[in-house]
Amino acid sequence: MRLKEFQSRLRKEDIDVAIFISPDPNIFYFSQVDMLSFACLIVPAAKEPVLITSMLDYERSSKEFKTVKNVLTLKRKKLSEFLADYLKKIKHGVIGINKTALSLYVFSKLRKALKGRFVDISEMCSELRAEKTYTEINYLRHAAKITDGVMKLVLDNFNMFKTENEVEAELNYLAKKQFADRSFKAIVASGRNSSMPHHMTKNRPLQKGFCLIDFGVKYKGYCSDITRMVFIGRPSEKEQKIYDLVRKVQENAIKNIKVGIEGAKLFSAAKEDLGKYGENFIHGLGHGIGVEIHEAPNLSDLSKDVLKKNMIFTIEPGIYFPNRLGIRIEDMVLLGERTAVLTRTPKGLRRV
Amino acid sequence: MRLKEFQSRLRKEDIDVAIFISPDPNIFYFSQVDMLSFACLIVPAAKEPVLITSMLDYERSSKEFKTVKNVLTLKRKKLSEFLADYLKKIKHGVIGINKTALSLYVFSKLRKALKGRFVDISEMCSELRAEKTYTEINYLRHAAKITDGVMKLVLDNFNMFKTENEVEAELNYLAKKQFADRSFKAIVASGRNSSMPHHMTKNRPLQKGFCLIDFGVKYKGYCSDITRMVFIGRPSEKEQKIYDLVRKVQENAIKNIKVGIEGAKLFSAAKEDLGKYGENFIHGLGHGIGVEIHEAPNLSDLSKDVLKKNMIFTIEPGIYFPNRLGIRIEDMVLLGERTAVLTRTPKGLRRV
Repeated sequence: MRLKEFQSRLRKEDIDVAIFISPDPNIFYFSQVDMLSFACLIVPAAKEPVLITSMLDYERSSKEFKTVKNVLTLKRKKLSEFLADYLKKIKHGVIGINKTALSLYVFSKLRKALKGRFVDISEMCSELRAEKTYTEINYLRHAAKITDGVMKLVLDNFNMFKTENEVEAELNYLAKKQFADRSFKAIVASGRNSSMPHHMTKNRPLQKGFCLIDFGVKYKGYCSDITRMVFIGRPSEKEQKIYDLVRKVQENAIKNIKVGIEGAKLFSAAKEDLGKYGENFIHGLGHGIGVEIHEAPNLSDLSKDVLKKNMIFTIEPGIYFPNRLGIRIEDMVLLGERTAVLTRTPKGLRRV
Repeated sequence: MRLKEFQSRLRKEDIDVAIFISPDPNIFYFSQVDMLSFACLIVPAAKEPVLITSMLDYERSSKEFKTVKNVLTLKRKKLSEFLADYLKKIKHGVIGINKTALSLYVFSKLRKALKGRFVDISEMCSELRAEKTYTEINYLRHAAKITDGVMKLVLDNFNMFKTENEVEAELNYLAKKQFADRSFKAIVASGRNSSMPHHMTKNRPLQKGFCLIDFGVKYKGYCSDITRMVFIGRPSEKEQKIYDLVRKVQENAIKNIKVGIEGAKLFSAAKEDLGKYGENFIHGLGHGIGVEIHEAPNLSDLSKDVLKKNMIFTIEPGIYFPNRLGIRIEDMVLLGERTAVLTRTPKGLRRV
C-alpha cells in the first residue's frame, strides 16, 4: 500500500533507499504478500522495489505479488553480501531503517557490510500506515463484518459451551469457515477471570457472572478487533449499572472523536466520564488497527498522536476489580467524513 | 527453566545482570508465564529475578508465577526510568542483552538511561534452551502426542473435507479441544500447491495428487511440529517412488543422528541421499523446537551447530518441483540415550 507515496517521502527527506528485514510488518504492508520465513524488502527512493524471500516462500511470492514485481532469493549468499552488491547499483548514501523492528544483531551486520548513513524511518512508516487507503478501509470493513457474523453465532449458541476453551475453539473455527484467520489469540474470561484484561482462556467450566469475549480476525492481512460481554446468570442491579456505565462511556468516547483531537484527550475524557471508577480503567482507550492488531494512533495517557481522517482504531474503555470482575466494550471505528462504527454487534448486556 | 544455571553462567562470564524486553522468547522460557502485552525480565547474576508486566497482565502474572516471584508494574514510570532506578540497587557494571530480539529503538533508550557496558547473551541463551530439561522433554512429548491424535482424526476423516481451508479449520479445532493452541499457522497444500513449502492454505477445492499437511500445537508453551502427506486419488508409480525415496531419506537421517555430529553434516548426508533430487531439496533438514517453533540447533547447510544430548529437533527432508508437486515428511526427534521419534503418526503414503 502507498508505495509511491512512501517513495516520494523518501525523496523529500533525502533518503536514498529503505531496507526492511523480517520480522517487520512494513514488508507485508508494502508488498501485500504474507511471508512465513525470512524476507527483506528494498525500496529505493527512485526505482522499483525488490523483495528478497527464502526459497520456502519464493514460488508463492513470485506468483502472488501485487505491488512488488522483482522477487529474488539469496541463493547461497548471505543477506549482508547481497545487500552490499545490490546497493552498488543504486544511490545509497542515506539508508532508511525501521528501528522499532530491526534487531541489534541484524543491524550490526548491516553496519559492517554497507557504506552509508543510517536514519530511522519508523515514524514515517507508522504515520503512513495510520491513515488508511480506500482499499484498506474496505478490507478492514470486511474484517469487521466477518467478526460480527462470528460473534453473532457464538452469542446465539452460547448455551452449548461448557468451558472458556470451547468458546475460543468455536470463534476460531467459525472465522476459518469464513476464510479468515484470527488476528490474535482470543480472550474468553468468565466470572473472576474477567478481572484480568489479558486472561489466558482456560479449560474450566464457564463461571457465573460477566464473561468477556475479545476476538478478531484477519482478512487479506488486515485485522479486526471487538470485545463484547455476556452475563451468565442474572446480573445484580449494581452489576447492570456498572455495565451500563461502561457502555455509556464507550458511546460518549465515540461521539467525542473528531479530526484534530489528541488520543490522550479522548482517553482522559473517558477516564473522567467513569467517575470514581476511573482508577479501575487500567489500560488505554484504544489503538489503531491495520496490518498489525496494534498500530498508530495510540489513544492513551501518554500518547501524542492526533486523530486524522481515514484513521481506523478501537474504542475500548474497561473497568476491572481485581479478583472479582471486569467489563470492557470494544468497537472498531473509522474516522471518515463522519465517524463510522465498523463493528455492529449489539451492545446490550446479553444474559445467557 | 534453568534459571539457576543461567545465573551461574552470568557469574562465570562476569555479567552482573541480564535484561530481556518483549518480544523475547526468553521471557517466557525463564518465567514460564505467557504474557500478551509488554514485559521485561531482569535477571541479576546473584539475586532474585524481577518480572515487569503491563497492568493488563499483572494480576494473572502474579497469580500464575512459577519461577519468578517478584512481579511488578511500571505504574506511570517509563521503562528506562524504572530500570535506571532498579539497577542502582544492584551491581550493574556489565549488562547482558539479547541482541537477536532487542530492537535498535529500545536499545537506544536503554543506552541513554543506563550506565554499564552492554554485552550480547543471545548465544548463551540459545545454547541453554537447546538442551531440554526433564520437564521440558515431558511437555514436548505431550505436545507431540496431542499432534498425533489430531492428525489421526483428520486423516481418518479426510473425505469429509472439500477445501484446504476446511482441513486447517479442523486441525485448529481438534487441537483446541485437547486444550492446545496452534504453534504456527498450519499449512495444507494440495496438488500443485504442494510445491510451495510455505503455501498459504486456500479456499479452493482440494486438488488431486499429493496433499501436504504441516501442523503443530503448543502445550504449556512448548511447540510441536509434524508434516504428513496424503494422496488424493491414485499415485502413479513414479509418484509413489519419489514418496518412498523421501521417506527412506528421512528415516536414514534419523538413524544418522548421534551426539557430537554437526547439523550441517546430517543435512549434506540427506541431500546426497536424495541423489539427483538433491537439488530439489530447498530448505534445511530440521530445526530445534521448544518455546519457539524454530530454535537451536539448526540442521542446515551453513549451520555450525553440533548435536548434544537432550536436544529436541525436527527431521524434515523434502523435494519440490515448482508448479507441479512437493513432498515433505517431518518428525520431532529427541536425542536422549538413544534417538526417540516423538511424533508417531504412520508414514506410509495414505490414499484418500
